Amino acid sequence: MTTIGFVGLGVMGRPMAHNLLAAGYPLVVHSRTMERAAPLIRAGAAAAGSPAAVAKAAEVVITMLPDTPDVEQVAEGSDGLFAGASEGLVWIDMSSISSAASTELAARAAARGIAMLDAPVSGGETGAVAGTLSIMVGGDEVTFERCLPVLRVMGGSVVRVGGPGAGQLAKACNQIVVGCTLAGVAEALVLAGKAGVDAAKVREVLLGGFAQSRILDVHGERMLTGDFAPGFRASLHRKDLVNALDAGRTYGSSLMLSSLVTELLNAQIAAGDGDLDHSALVKVYEALADAHRG
Amino acid sequence: MTTIGFVGLGVMGRPMAHNLLAAGYPLVVHSRTMERAAPLIRAGAAAAGSPAAVAKAAEVVITMLPDTPDVEQVAEGSDGLFAGASEGLVWIDMSSISSAASTELAARAAARGIAMLDAPVSGGETGAVAGTLSIMVGGDEVTFERCLPVLRVMGGSVVRVGGPGAGQLAKACNQIVVGCTLAGVAEALVLAGKAGVDAAKVREVLLGGFAQSRILDVHGERMLTGDFAPGFRASLHRKDLVNALDAGRTYGSSLMLSSLVTELLNAQIAAGDGDLDHSALVKVYEALADAHRG
Repeated sequence: MTTIGFVGLGVMGRPMAHNLLAAGYPLVVHSRTMERAAPLIRAGAAAAGSPAAVAKAAEVVITMLPDTPDVEQVAEGSDGLFAGASEGLVWIDMSSISSAASTELAARAAARGIAMLDAPVSGGETGAVAGTLSIMVGGDEVTFERCLPVLRVMGGSVVRVGGPGAGQLAKACNQIVVGCTLAGVAEALVLAGKAGVDAAKVREVLLGGFAQSRILDVHGERMLTGDFAPGFRASLHRKDLVNALDAGRTYGSSLMLSSLVTELLNAQIAAGDGDLDHSALVKVYEALADAHRG
Repeated sequence: MTTIGFVGLGVMGRPMAHNLLAAGYPLVVHSRTMERAAPLIRAGAAAAGSPAAVAKAAEVVITMLPDTPDVEQVAEGSDGLFAGASEGLVWIDMSSISSAASTELAARAAARGIAMLDAPVSGGETGAVAGTLSIMVGGDEVTFERCLPVLRVMGGSVVRVGGPGAGQLAKACNQIVVGCTLAGVAEALVLAGKAGVDAAKVREVLLGGFAQSRILDVHGERMLTGDFAPGFRASLHRKDLVNALDAGRTYGSSLMLSSLVTELLNAQIAAGDGDLDHSALVKVYEALADAHRG
């Protein structure tokens, strides 16, 4: 079977790598904090000292990193993927980064004979553990078809939406919809509470009509119980929305609600809650309501 | 079986009344435009010349009207429900109106010995025809229990969320969530289109992750095909959001995104599209993107 390299073993990367190992793929891993790799190494993965060493050892390299500069550094740093890569390497970047930066990276990779897919995901840690992520892929069709068996190990829904950068653009769209739905649910549940109406029952009845969403279900529940352990950190959602707003400017598309959601996440992060789940956005609304009361 | 009166035979009221008739309830109907009652009368309903006459003939009266002033007029007008009602009448108002006005109507009804439930719905014409509406009920528990068999004929999910006005408040919450989700979906799909990414594939992949919602499914599809026959008119959604914003002011709860969605619906209505389905909100975003291009 194809030897797979995996760089970035955070909350998402670790379970994704475990699923690849469990599916029988020989795995070579690297992480900035190598202690994160220990459980994978115990389970049979090989360790590599740098992204370059990963690229040398593997036929397909997957990266799962926090932000655009991290991906650029891992790819183009002095001991980065490009430094260790031979022609014919396939690189699947599953991080959520800027669509424009991803498109440029794909061009620079292609110049070195590296075929790149951008393949960001939705579905959170739960989806990563269960191997049911929704994977949005940009890149050429031949490379996509070749990587499909690997992607299907991690994803329940794997769709190629277009050429280089299109996966990241789709992920930006995903985060727009998630962010607006999340803020809408927060507005509704806080209003219900302030009006003295049972917010849990409101959530329940809304799930039966056109207001139904996975966010109302999962994050609405978190808002009611106050369980804000991530999940998906507010700071990462803001990063994705900043990427979305950049794309909006690039393509001349107005993102009014998304810009307001970004500001609400700014407020959440400024209040010290950036490492909480993004559903803690409800606390911003509660603070605003309290201010109004006070 | 309990004789039911039904006032208001619009897009929603007609199929709801038909379902009551089909369930075997003797039905007395009234509509401002009585030709709308013709199919119901052919199917066995009796016609009444005024809301007062409906109240005289029925034990339970259901109203399904466009807005707060319509409900106040039908209840308290010179030939309104109150004029014809005997003590013990049960009145279920299934219109979507102001929660504060509904609470006041319930108090004035109670003073006349009329038990009132506010029981607005979500699920649109499709849900009304199929009898699968989501029904949000406010009012006292005894009246609710008594009316449950009648409500279950029209609704797939029937939940009492609290006392008088609570059903309307829950409906406001519903329209907040629907409106924010709708605008988020429009922002995402227009961005995808402008960026040259296949918006249909973006919708498809987003449905597999945390962005999943009934709005992305049903209204996202409408946005892609341009099928804007209502469904649910933009002008009615704006009315519901104005009621929500009123409630936000009353209870000191901030509704930032909802106020922006209200403004977007204002733009849609000003452009002459108020009688289209609310999913035509996407046209506002397309016009903004075109303006940016031009």
